[in-house]
Amino acid sequence: MDDIAVLSVGDELLFGEIDNTNASWIAERLFDNGCQVNEIITVPDKVDVIASKVERLLSEYKNIIITGGLGPTQDDITRDGVARATGQELIYRPELADNIKSFFNEIGKEVTENNYRQAYLPADAEPILNEEGTAPGFYLVAEGSNIFVLPGVPVEMKRMIDNFVLDRVCQPRQKNSYDLTLRVAGIGEAALEDRIKDIINRSEGIAFRFLPHGGEISIKLSLRPGFDPDNFAKVVAEIKEELGYYIYGEGDKSLAGVVSDLLRENNFSLALAESCTGGLIAKRLTDIPGASDFFKGGVIVYSNASKVRLLGLAEEILEKEGAVSRLAADQMATGVKELFDADFGVSVTGIAGPGGGTDEKPVGLVYSTICSNSCEFQERWSFSGDRKKVRWYASQYILNKLRLAILEAIK
Amino acid sequence: MDDIAVLSVGDELLFGEIDNTNASWIAERLFDNGCQVNEIITVPDKVDVIASKVERLLSEYKNIIITGGLGPTQDDITRDGVARATGQELIYRPELADNIKSFFNEIGKEVTENNYRQAYLPADAEPILNEEGTAPGFYLVAEGSNIFVLPGVPVEMKRMIDNFVLDRVCQPRQKNSYDLTLRVAGIGEAALEDRIKDIINRSEGIAFRFLPHGGEISIKLSLRPGFDPDNFAKVVAEIKEELGYYIYGEGDKSLAGVVSDLLRENNFSLALAESCTGGLIAKRLTDIPGASDFFKGGVIVYSNASKVRLLGLAEEILEKEGAVSRLAADQMATGVKELFDADFGVSVTGIAGPGGGTDEKPVGLVYSTICSNSCEFQERWSFSGDRKKVRWYASQYILNKLRLAILEAIK
Repeated sequence: MDDIAVLSVGDELLFGEIDNTNASWIAERLFDNGCQVNEIITVPDKVDVIASKVERLLSEYKNIIITGGLGPTQDDITRDGVARATGQELIYRPELADNIKSFFNEIGKEVTENNYRQAYLPADAEPILNEEGTAPGFYLVAEGSNIFVLPGVPVEMKRMIDNFVLDRVCQPRQKNSYDLTLRVAGIGEAALEDRIKDIINRSEGIAFRFLPHGGEISIKLSLRPGFDPDNFAKVVAEIKEELGYYIYGEGDKSLAGVVSDLLRENNFSLALAESCTGGLIAKRLTDIPGASDFFKGGVIVYSNASKVRLLGLAEEILEKEGAVSRLAADQMATGVKELFDADFGVSVTGIAGPGGGTDEKPVGLVYSTICSNSCEFQERWSFSGDRKKVRWYASQYILNKLRLAILEAIK
Repeated sequence: MDDIAVLSVGDELLFGEIDNTNASWIAERLFDNGCQVNEIITVPDKVDVIASKVERLLSEYKNIIITGGLGPTQDDITRDGVARATGQELIYRPELADNIKSFFNEIGKEVTENNYRQAYLPADAEPILNEEGTAPGFYLVAEGSNIFVLPGVPVEMKRMIDNFVLDRVCQPRQKNSYDLTLRVAGIGEAALEDRIKDIINRSEGIAFRFLPHGGEISIKLSLRPGFDPDNFAKVVAEIKEELGYYIYGEGDKSLAGVVSDLLRENNFSLALAESCTGGLIAKRLTDIPGASDFFKGGVIVYSNASKVRLLGLAEEILEKEGAVSRLAADQMATGVKELFDADFGVSVTGIAGPGGGTDEKPVGLVYSTICSNSCEFQERWSFSGDRKKVRWYASQYILNKLRLAILEAIK
């Protein structure tokens, strides 16, 4: 019998209006806690469909995590589906009704009759406290399997996974302190594998997974049961030694997060001059709380006139070399560093496409310069792919170059 | 027997590394073509699991769309799983091997032995041409059901859905030219329903769905078979009359796309001064090709000093009112309009959180001003939710206000 299935309930997931990010979040959270989702299934808001899928999953899986369909409206029929699949009645729980009432009181709203639908649970179910909203989750055991039923609202679901589900699904024996994710940027997958293949080959009992995504690679290492933890530590050290600065972080770290931390810890300030990325790099850095500690600001110089006026780019360079050129990148970085009086000035200029490319300067061409004490032109990249991909890769490669420049500066 | 199931194959989807956007794209595409996915299921790269799921789906569904696991490596075993489920041998197809060879020749790379794995298909399968890569898809009929097997690479999969699958799965009789999506912004779901509930109640034979997402609402209308198309047109006209400017567009349109079109069509230029949104609004507008037609640029003024220096915000206002205030929003919009010499100058200043809030100015407080011929303060919003949500909603509400300001200007 396999371990874990996730059942997502919701018409909206089958109309394609919404990606099923709940399921992928759960899969990742569980994986990081040493256990694995074996199947994800998405079904509409129909009682009979939910009931029949739950019946099937009960015969195949030890743990079934269900999300969605616990709201107050007539469409929300996950409670009914689970009750039917497990042959139980829905029973009114006065204590849950009280919770719902006080939740509404607190936010100063009236409870409607509909809201009390959420106080009905299958007879044997144990409620799971909702610290973020009104819909209680619930837990029951049927045919020897665990069923966890959680709301579809991400913040509510996530809390319940962390506080209630993880401990019950990922048995302590499965939890593995010898799991590690190394996050790598600035090297391709083939070159990376090539570089550490000797280490991998002599690492008995350690499983490796390479997950390339959006211009970086996660290396997931886990020690198989019964093998030597000391050897795990040794292998990790060898890989770190071999890859050096290619490793930008471990675990959950994001590249933008690592760059932010480096700037903050070293009291460096930053200013950005973006052309083709149109604010994407600034957006990525300011997605993270506390960006005002180091980010003085940026300019998005989408027109040539603004490059001249705000950044002092020489008209001559625009005429002779064009806005997408090494000299333009240099002057933009110099200009923005001065404009914001920042420790680091970073420029990006390029052609994101689909229009605007020429034989000489095709779509995907991107230049960047980073100035700190001195200015250093970084690279002339030729990214392939559509506009979205070119912009994302540019942001990714430039953030990585900025990381390396900061590391160089504090050497 | 239900109509359509989607089976996504890939360990990476169950490790949570990647959202299953292929499945949601297929669901939406099919829905827009008048037919509906009834179940989405995600399984790992394991032959026996794939085979058993395909067997089950064959007994439940008339059409099974499978994506992923058609690559050249040993992990790619969808071919084997489908062959096993349908009791067929995998047969080598010399003509497919030739295609693969010429594809590699064209891009100037060597074919490796592994690549020829892609030339094996189940005996009865018809290949589906891959115009974007090497892995052919394939189509076969088993137990009276259609099985479509497509690569997991989005661009390859999408072409095959459009060119091969749609016509076979969404029967012409199901196609419905009386489907319409109205996109609405600036009004809440309850108020929206309330406003058009009388129209809905007298619209026999028309199905309505409300899909709120990220600060806007899609209203999906479809005419049920056998009802009067003229009445559909009448109801649509009534709803448009009632909702007026709340409707920002139809079909696939995005709010940023509509704003872009309005600016371009009316030869208006735009400049942005962003504080708490940190480049998000610029990013959204420049995600769309051709933004340089109207977008002169923007500044991200994350520090007070930059607000003063670049936008001429009076120090006195910063001291007395603070950077998050109506007067600051006004001066930022005026300043950025001048700085870029643009027709429209838009400012946003606020507290995205989680830090930085006070009793007087809590997290979620956002001000915006829009200047064209004159400057008009827009609103003092209090958004709830985390940093990501506050930033997204701010960008959404401001784009909508900008849309209304342009409509006002061209009246």
